[in-house]
Amino acid sequence: MTATSFIGYSRGVHNGPLSHATNPATGEVMEPGFASPSADEVESAVQLAAAAFPAYRQLTAATRADFMRTIASEIETSIDAIWTRGTAETGLPEARLRGETARTVGQLRLFAAMLDDGSWLDARIEHAQPDRTPLPKPDLRSMLRPVGPVVVFCASNFPMAYSVAGGDTASALATGCPVIVKAHSSHPGVAEIVAAAVIRAAQQCGMPEGVFSLLYGSGRDVGMTLVKHPQIKAVGFTGSRAGGRALMDAAAARPEPIPVYAEMSSINPVVMLPEILAEKAPALAEGFFQSLTMGVGQFCTNPGLLFLPEGSESAFLEKLTSLIHDAAPGVMLNAGICQAYLDATNATVAHEGVEKIASEKIPAPGQGAPVVFRCNAATFLQNPTLTHEMFGPASLIVTGTWEQITAAANSLEGQLTASLHGTTNDLAAAAALMEILERKAGRIVFNGFPTGVDVSHSMVHGGPYPSTSDGRSTSVGTMAAYRFCRPVAWQNAPQEQLPDELKDANPLRIARMIDGKRCDP
Amino acid sequence: MTATSFIGYSRGVHNGPLSHATNPATGEVMEPGFASPSADEVESAVQLAAAAFPAYRQLTAATRADFMRTIASEIETSIDAIWTRGTAETGLPEARLRGETARTVGQLRLFAAMLDDGSWLDARIEHAQPDRTPLPKPDLRSMLRPVGPVVVFCASNFPMAYSVAGGDTASALATGCPVIVKAHSSHPGVAEIVAAAVIRAAQQCGMPEGVFSLLYGSGRDVGMTLVKHPQIKAVGFTGSRAGGRALMDAAAARPEPIPVYAEMSSINPVVMLPEILAEKAPALAEGFFQSLTMGVGQFCTNPGLLFLPEGSESAFLEKLTSLIHDAAPGVMLNAGICQAYLDATNATVAHEGVEKIASEKIPAPGQGAPVVFRCNAATFLQNPTLTHEMFGPASLIVTGTWEQITAAANSLEGQLTASLHGTTNDLAAAAALMEILERKAGRIVFNGFPTGVDVSHSMVHGGPYPSTSDGRSTSVGTMAAYRFCRPVAWQNAPQEQLPDELKDANPLRIARMIDGKRCDP
Repeated sequence: MTATSFIGYSRGVHNGPLSHATNPATGEVMEPGFASPSADEVESAVQLAAAAFPAYRQLTAATRADFMRTIASEIETSIDAIWTRGTAETGLPEARLRGETARTVGQLRLFAAMLDDGSWLDARIEHAQPDRTPLPKPDLRSMLRPVGPVVVFCASNFPMAYSVAGGDTASALATGCPVIVKAHSSHPGVAEIVAAAVIRAAQQCGMPEGVFSLLYGSGRDVGMTLVKHPQIKAVGFTGSRAGGRALMDAAAARPEPIPVYAEMSSINPVVMLPEILAEKAPALAEGFFQSLTMGVGQFCTNPGLLFLPEGSESAFLEKLTSLIHDAAPGVMLNAGICQAYLDATNATVAHEGVEKIASEKIPAPGQGAPVVFRCNAATFLQNPTLTHEMFGPASLIVTGTWEQITAAANSLEGQLTASLHGTTNDLAAAAALMEILERKAGRIVFNGFPTGVDVSHSMVHGGPYPSTSDGRSTSVGTMAAYRFCRPVAWQNAPQEQLPDELKDANPLRIARMIDGKRCDP
Repeated sequence: MTATSFIGYSRGVHNGPLSHATNPATGEVMEPGFASPSADEVESAVQLAAAAFPAYRQLTAATRADFMRTIASEIETSIDAIWTRGTAETGLPEARLRGETARTVGQLRLFAAMLDDGSWLDARIEHAQPDRTPLPKPDLRSMLRPVGPVVVFCASNFPMAYSVAGGDTASALATGCPVIVKAHSSHPGVAEIVAAAVIRAAQQCGMPEGVFSLLYGSGRDVGMTLVKHPQIKAVGFTGSRAGGRALMDAAAARPEPIPVYAEMSSINPVVMLPEILAEKAPALAEGFFQSLTMGVGQFCTNPGLLFLPEGSESAFLEKLTSLIHDAAPGVMLNAGICQAYLDATNATVAHEGVEKIASEKIPAPGQGAPVVFRCNAATFLQNPTLTHEMFGPASLIVTGTWEQITAAANSLEGQLTASLHGTTNDLAAAAALMEILERKAGRIVFNGFPTGVDVSHSMVHGGPYPSTSDGRSTSVGTMAAYRFCRPVAWQNAPQEQLPDELKDANPLRIARMIDGKRCDP
């Protein structure tokens, strides 16, 4: 490992403070130390990205698609290095890292397929009507264009799929935006391996230097410098509510404010309805337990809140209690997350009226143990702090009357997901609750659990604040491409001055809207 | 006239300070005085909007389309009252007010047609793949949903098309968002006439109370209260850069930040290339003059900056100078705008190296006279304040070498439009400049002028900051619907729990994306 930043096609020099990863399972400090970039190196990365933008945005969609696919192949050639270093840096098992790498390359290829298809551009053509009264209509054509260099912050809990070449990087590169990645201090080695793969792909594909850089260093220093830089036009972030809000505030205070897409904090309410609880409480408890403890609960879609109607809860709770008692603690991603988990769960149980159902196993240092809390709806409604996310394998079960559960749902902040378990009869009776949940969340899950976010065209992984900074967007799936684009219109342009996507002959054979009607190629 | 706010289906009571319109042509203070709403009345309007949202958003698209069309018809029945009061309040001529009313009702009907068509919803269906490895794929469907109650600020320069029932109101109501309009103090009477038409339509169509309210009062007090209210989910604004930025900052500082769509400040650069100048300089000067002086220059698309290549400018300038010398002053919208115009033009001419070409007619009080300034590119590049908008019939002509013009274009802030005049040869030689302008602007106009914004599917009336707060959006045309929406996904939902737009049977016959492919109904 070189353990320095990637400044376009060059590497940084070792002259800053060194930062080491720590193996969360053993507490061992790992070599090498990664050098923070100098202010000049940060500036160079930005200037290279700004210089690359005019060339990169003008490449054909096919060329960008080829670049995305080459990144995917280069990552695949590094899979052994990724999981070897990754398991040590993150405590995640080999299977998870292999699976996450598969997701990452699949995501890159899905965006490449989106580029091939072309309909995402929302290309629109309206022909001139010189005889229209009272005013002639001009020829007017529009499509989406990239906004400019984007900064992507790596996520601690997705060292592959939401880090160096993860979702935000894939969507930004696909749309024509250069990317500067701010590496996460928890997995700098994985970041180097993946960044090297991206750079190899960029060089093989003849991309302009600066289309990709990766910077080490702290979020407060390097990260904030990037977010405030006038050449940066958008930000992607996955992490804590405090961290995301700090970026939002900095971006909004710029002379030229820019969008920040921060995925921050969600407790993902789950509601189980009476008839289905009567039918299969033990299976529901098993499913809930699996969703709660998967990946040691370190998912933004972890089910952190469960509503159970009073009188229907006993069989479910009996089964869940037994599962939790026997549940094994797991290594958490890093010491900071582990401590925050302890603090959050201690804060929850400190509320009067909150009962704790804990694992009987003692967690080793660095580990978090699954835990479930219980309270009644009155307690929940009186204590808004009970809605705070406990990042890890913890959830709060709230029991109450149907009216209380509806009121509690209505009191929630914005969520990534909301899940309902019910029979046909249950769901028919829950229309009012459903209406509330749909206004609160980005994705409504029926008879399932919120974990598991399919990377696809219809996925919405984004919801009203504070689950994300901007509920109009998704960070997973091809709709994420919209976040780094803006529409541009050409009025009365000669054919040869138009992008291929808007030419009458439709040389790229893409679906477009023509004179108000959607048209196949 | 009742001269009080519309709080849902009730009217406010006269208990606040009264505000009077002033006839800008005569300086006469007009009766009646319009009452500022009390804090309780503002709160009532918001609570009614919040209460209306769940019902309004669940109405069928056809019902909302019918509501839009009924608003249009009700406005048409009021046309005589509109132009009579409007000419006195704004100084705009009858023909303009009639034309703007036609545009306003056309815009409402265009959004109704968009609702009928349904493809704007971006409905997506992906069928389950239970056998997919390594993980089964769930059934996943998504479409756009409204964000919630929206506040719309009326624009002084578009008393109809960007005021009470203007573009922002039309797009918000179309997407399912209740609207609270903050009236502009320049044309409170027109606001009352149009609001009454909207309310009649809402009652005829059985809309939930609160789907529309209109509040008088000041922007700093009533406007800011609305923007900071937790039940408000988005803001539409057209006005000054300072006013728009104040709203952006307030919205970004909320506990739950919300999007502000502010259309603020643009100087709309025009570039004329050598060959076309040689061919038809007098006609270009005539066209430029018309665009500059139309509506006394009070358009956001007014051509406030013109680049002329050194050596090609003389015939153009000769003709333009003669037109400007003879140009008649015109009544401006209000005394504040008139004073600001004087201040801005005085500030421009105070720069060393800036020459003034003025009308020889003396403006009466309340009038603004067309004026053109000239400087060389070096002066322009050394004085960033020369890029400030002069709202009114004023423009700055910059001459320089091609390299200087390119550098000057590259130094510009974000713009609503950029226009190029050139022959085929000219345009072929200007590729580098075109690339720069496309990054700066929302709409590129070829061999035309920026004024005249067609209301259509392909129009982009939005550009990078500070032309608007959010260049990812347009305030004119059907793409404006996207500003008040967010995507929502349904996972494994039973058919009867899905919106009609996402049901397998496609009962609304709308275009959708199915398993990654765009499909006609």
